[in-house]
Amino acid sequence: MGTARVVFDRWDGRYAERLGSVRSSAVRDLFAAASRSDMISFAGGMPEVRQVPTEAVAEAARDAILHEGAAALQYGSSDGRPQLRTIIVELMAEIGVRLGADELVVTAGAQQGLDLLAKTFLDPGDVIITEGPTYVGALQAFSAYQPQVICIPMDDDGMRVDLLADELARLGPRGAKFIYTIPNFQNPGGVTLTPERRRRLLELAREYDIPVIEDDPYGRLRFEGGHVKPLRALDDEVIYLGTFSKIFAPGLRLGWMTAPRPILAKVLLTKQAADLCGSAFAQVTAERYFTGTRWRKVLQGLTRTYAERRDVMLEALDEHFPPEARWTRPEGGFFVWVELPEFLDANAMLAEAVENGVTFVPGDGFFPDERGCNCMRLAFCYASPDDIREGVARLASVLEDRLELYRAFIAAGAISGGLREEGAA
Amino acid sequence: MGTARVVFDRWDGRYAERLGSVRSSAVRDLFAAASRSDMISFAGGMPEVRQVPTEAVAEAARDAILHEGAAALQYGSSDGRPQLRTIIVELMAEIGVRLGADELVVTAGAQQGLDLLAKTFLDPGDVIITEGPTYVGALQAFSAYQPQVICIPMDDDGMRVDLLADELARLGPRGAKFIYTIPNFQNPGGVTLTPERRRRLLELAREYDIPVIEDDPYGRLRFEGGHVKPLRALDDEVIYLGTFSKIFAPGLRLGWMTAPRPILAKVLLTKQAADLCGSAFAQVTAERYFTGTRWRKVLQGLTRTYAERRDVMLEALDEHFPPEARWTRPEGGFFVWVELPEFLDANAMLAEAVENGVTFVPGDGFFPDERGCNCMRLAFCYASPDDIREGVARLASVLEDRLELYRAFIAAGAISGGLREEGAA
Repeated sequence: MGTARVVFDRWDGRYAERLGSVRSSAVRDLFAAASRSDMISFAGGMPEVRQVPTEAVAEAARDAILHEGAAALQYGSSDGRPQLRTIIVELMAEIGVRLGADELVVTAGAQQGLDLLAKTFLDPGDVIITEGPTYVGALQAFSAYQPQVICIPMDDDGMRVDLLADELARLGPRGAKFIYTIPNFQNPGGVTLTPERRRRLLELAREYDIPVIEDDPYGRLRFEGGHVKPLRALDDEVIYLGTFSKIFAPGLRLGWMTAPRPILAKVLLTKQAADLCGSAFAQVTAERYFTGTRWRKVLQGLTRTYAERRDVMLEALDEHFPPEARWTRPEGGFFVWVELPEFLDANAMLAEAVENGVTFVPGDGFFPDERGCNCMRLAFCYASPDDIREGVARLASVLEDRLELYRAFIAAGAISGGLREEGAA
Repeated sequence: MGTARVVFDRWDGRYAERLGSVRSSAVRDLFAAASRSDMISFAGGMPEVRQVPTEAVAEAARDAILHEGAAALQYGSSDGRPQLRTIIVELMAEIGVRLGADELVVTAGAQQGLDLLAKTFLDPGDVIITEGPTYVGALQAFSAYQPQVICIPMDDDGMRVDLLADELARLGPRGAKFIYTIPNFQNPGGVTLTPERRRRLLELAREYDIPVIEDDPYGRLRFEGGHVKPLRALDDEVIYLGTFSKIFAPGLRLGWMTAPRPILAKVLLTKQAADLCGSAFAQVTAERYFTGTRWRKVLQGLTRTYAERRDVMLEALDEHFPPEARWTRPEGGFFVWVELPEFLDANAMLAEAVENGVTFVPGDGFFPDERGCNCMRLAFCYASPDDIREGVARLASVLEDRLELYRAFIAAGAISGGLREEGAA
């Protein structure tokens, strides 16, 4: 999965040990492939920024720079501009979280938040808990600090908190440095943690005295069902990661972290060491863009677009995919998670899929170990409805070829059918 | 020097070990103080961005976004936009460095380059070599990876390569993970490494097989004397860090790193983990700003401004500062380094200076240990000529108060006069 061309490396053996645990992101590697014009991409979780009005952003940038002057071009404070932090406080209030502007720091996307938290908390060998599968970028950020990652399986109601309880009982109080969760429209699972399980997760975290990191990039992209309060709204010790990438645009690299003040002070030290401060230029532009109400209409339009694409993908999967496949039905976000018979290797299928003009992300990238090889993440956020129909059909034909062999084996009694049980390690 | 308010921290004892080595940057902490309107700041190395034409940047941002459309708002490749990398290749050619666009990566300022290199190379306890004093942000970035930092003293010709040779002989081949140097108008020393010493440093690095990191934020801000070729122009294995912060504006958080391809591939992995990719929004704006020639006139104007301020500061120091003080005479950049009798503690003087309406950075922040307490860094880049004259006079009066006691001691034979010998640990 490496991005590097194979070249002689005369510095081999002199890199930090941590690089042995850092894998290149399959998602990132595929962004290049996805940019081929004939390719239908279910790979990268790229927002449909073509719907963000370019001229509005252009005017926001121009007006903000003219208005802010030198402040837009200068170094700023490490925690971010007060004006943008005020906007973030309002955004958080809309999802039920009350906090002060001094309880958050502006980051370079939520990804930087993940890196800084790992840097703040993790020594080599430390235990952390995540959902399994989980966001590949989180695994990448965490792995640089060499933790032991324990994955808790999910079902349609999100993380299996009963299995979390078992794991915590085994580990004991403070037995993990943190629990990392994406409760809304999980990446890559597509499932949402129910309100009951949210409360239970927080009870367990309190009982075992383990910080919770809530990563919520997709929370405002709900297609149906009622808003579910974030964990941070239920417990003010929860560390919350937000991002402008999905409600505005990833190209500004703006996100935020809220955390209890002592933790935030430590994170700020790591932020200074990482890049001194965030981009004032991007921040003033975001401030201007989020003044007024147009951004809400754009976001509503985006959400409708994603909802339509989700519908089209689920219909196409129902129509084309074989009975041996199982997939999630997300109520929001970007992703459907497909599980195939264990016999099938999604990585092997990917090469064939690319030949057929469609990409996806094989499931093993979303686990810290060898699991997930029989799974794939399909992003419905970026392709057009027609392309989604066509892409799913293409993918189904690749699948069908592989399944013929599988069915022959089943018929011969050589292997047992069915999907691997969830919860099995 | 911490930024955190003193609060009870119930997570105490659960942070990573590395945080024990990360100090808050005194420079960063002082940015806040420096923003008081009545304060004359010799503290932060903030460029005079008021001379960067705001309306030109505003138009560059607007035009770039309108022209690039969705690409300006989307995720991009981790190594940076090809267009910006082409511009960087041209900028490097102008200072005598030939390289391909695939031999560099765009970073969030040079600071991110420092963080990523430390992350790529350092395990706890690894030895690294820097100048002493050196850039506080580099110490901060490196210290998160828990190295042992060996500082090589400087004189008016830059790093004492004879002392470097001694140190390398002691450490042996590959005895350090890298040598970090700021050869031009060093921060905080203000001195420039001579061409002869550059060649000698590279010979030594080759002989002991140790990578060299050349940090060159100020190279294009030369007031007098001829251009000195960067280390990277003399040896293509040198890792070079450049930044747009001083030739354009820090508020975009754009810099770059060139490195041999195998090292760059590793750095890219750490970049993905840190923030996925740089800001396309900032990159398209920089591309537009660096098209045409106006930026050159702006940079010439900035250089003239800094040169004038350097002159004013050196004159004022000559006029007001006591004979016991010694300072450097930089040929470019932002900083003068002042050395006082060892008896004096610059940290203690800072509080008094702030009361008198002038700030600077005490010297010990530029060392990994207790050295430098009798030194101060004076930035001449940001204050107006009148303020520089006034600020130096205020600082001199603070010094004078302290020196009276010192002189009385000398007269009484209680302590010996003179400055500490350079090279003494």
